[in-house]
Amino acid sequence: MQDKKDKAAAWFKDLRNQICSEFEAIEDELTGGNKSDLPAGRFERNPWAREEGSEPNESGSILHGGGEISIMRGRVFEKVGVNISTVHGAFSPEFARKIPGADKSDGMFWAGGISIVAHMQSPLVPAVHMNTRMIVTSKSWFGGGADLTPMFMISRETTEDAKEFHGALERCCNRHPVADYQEYKEWCDRYFYLPHRNEPRGIGGIFYDYLASSKDGQDRWNDDFAFTQDVGRTFLDVYPKIVRKHMNKPWASAEREEQLIRRGRYVEYNLLYDRGTTFGLKTGGNTDAILMSLPPEVKWP
Amino acid sequence: MQDKKDKAAAWFKDLRNQICSEFEAIEDELTGGNKSDLPAGRFERNPWAREEGSEPNESGSILHGGGEISIMRGRVFEKVGVNISTVHGAFSPEFARKIPGADKSDGMFWAGGISIVAHMQSPLVPAVHMNTRMIVTSKSWFGGGADLTPMFMISRETTEDAKEFHGALERCCNRHPVADYQEYKEWCDRYFYLPHRNEPRGIGGIFYDYLASSKDGQDRWNDDFAFTQDVGRTFLDVYPKIVRKHMNKPWASAEREEQLIRRGRYVEYNLLYDRGTTFGLKTGGNTDAILMSLPPEVKWP
Repeated sequence: MQDKKDKAAAWFKDLRNQICSEFEAIEDELTGGNKSDLPAGRFERNPWAREEGSEPNESGSILHGGGEISIMRGRVFEKVGVNISTVHGAFSPEFARKIPGADKSDGMFWAGGISIVAHMQSPLVPAVHMNTRMIVTSKSWFGGGADLTPMFMISRETTEDAKEFHGALERCCNRHPVADYQEYKEWCDRYFYLPHRNEPRGIGGIFYDYLASSKDGQDRWNDDFAFTQDVGRTFLDVYPKIVRKHMNKPWASAEREEQLIRRGRYVEYNLLYDRGTTFGLKTGGNTDAILMSLPPEVKWP
Repeated sequence: MQDKKDKAAAWFKDLRNQICSEFEAIEDELTGGNKSDLPAGRFERNPWAREEGSEPNESGSILHGGGEISIMRGRVFEKVGVNISTVHGAFSPEFARKIPGADKSDGMFWAGGISIVAHMQSPLVPAVHMNTRMIVTSKSWFGGGADLTPMFMISRETTEDAKEFHGALERCCNRHPVADYQEYKEWCDRYFYLPHRNEPRGIGGIFYDYLASSKDGQDRWNDDFAFTQDVGRTFLDVYPKIVRKHMNKPWASAEREEQLIRRGRYVEYNLLYDRGTTFGLKTGGNTDAILMSLPPEVKWP
């Protein structure tokens, strides 16, 4: 298992490096739109660590390990966070009951992952979220996904972006017998939904969890890992294409206003419903890393 | 009990009218600051109603009745919502277990109240929240409170505002033997706290709930109601004083930036922790009324 943890953690770091390079390249390429007079953005990287031997936090969980927060405030990416972390510890008994296999591990867990949220300067460029992770208790599994949040839900451009994004994820899933695109797409639509608004958060994508395939009594960890890597590579391929397609177009202030309001829905979702956010904050995770997902500027007029 | 419900509902409406008049008068009085060239704001009033006979919502609760949303987007009050509502219905069995007396009322409840949140144009003027309510199940009680959120937590002016605000609420409690200022002040400090930030939301005020006094076997509803009315009157007296003290001063853009960031904490609190917000959204309350508390403009830079 240590070898698997090492491989997964190394991959999340490698993917982080590739994504940050690609996003910085996009910053350099900007020639149009409303912000091309600004300097190209660059990522800042902030490592964080929790010392061994900490006391349980107020929720009764213990968290050790650390991660790196990469943040860029640029002229294409208004605010983008790319976080990796490798943590371990013990869930409180209450939390342990909700996590598969944690009852048989005395609450002990290990988790490695990468998480990205990008809020864009241009209201013509969709916001995006991608996250993949490996979790170990007495069981081990992968989870993650990617979803797109256009600022104008009904325009034809959005429909084209949606087709491109969904198509790329569908082809990704189809390359991997352990993955089920239809199931993951529907899971994403169910998950990223705001019941109090009767609205989806965006146009969806895929969401998967508890992926721990086996065949003839043998685990298929290598296949699950390969799929998880491919989700990352697919994101790295398709999202930059969508950004480059729109980033040089000028936008109107009314479009910016609508973007700021749509971002409010993103905040509502993340703070009211997102499992990663509420789970992270309540188990004593790194607040700065968790709340990096919040947009740089928002309006509830 | 019907007479008590009627009296309470009539008071909440009367208080709403007084508060809206006073806030509009403040809009008219502005002579300085950065926004005095804007026209004085006026409240818009939007009634809402839920028809009888609705099906339970997804959480299994039924909500009937309605209310009025009063909102003003002015030059002193950037966004202020003053909501009154009178609703009744049946809590889902899960919710009923958490509410005093709802087990013996088959989940049936009645609730009337007023709720105010004001976000100000000037970062030199604190934001404020006030809410009082009467709840009836097989029991009945009052709850509510008021708390102040300055945008600069350490300035001397804030300290003076804090003294004025706390002093007014202390004198209010001291006028009513059913109230306990120290207890209510500490309750407020505990309640309006962001554990993930290790920060209080503001400088506090008072918070009380389940107020159902009795003496020699007789309920003291009249005394509890008189205290609840006085909380409203005290708010109506002290907050306008604080607003008028600061509203005509000019502010710097760095102060505005800090205000926008502090408002982010307000959003985090309301969506992650506030019982009224999460309870309201999850029992099928009016989303527009509940989320009126969110600030008009916010930054998480």
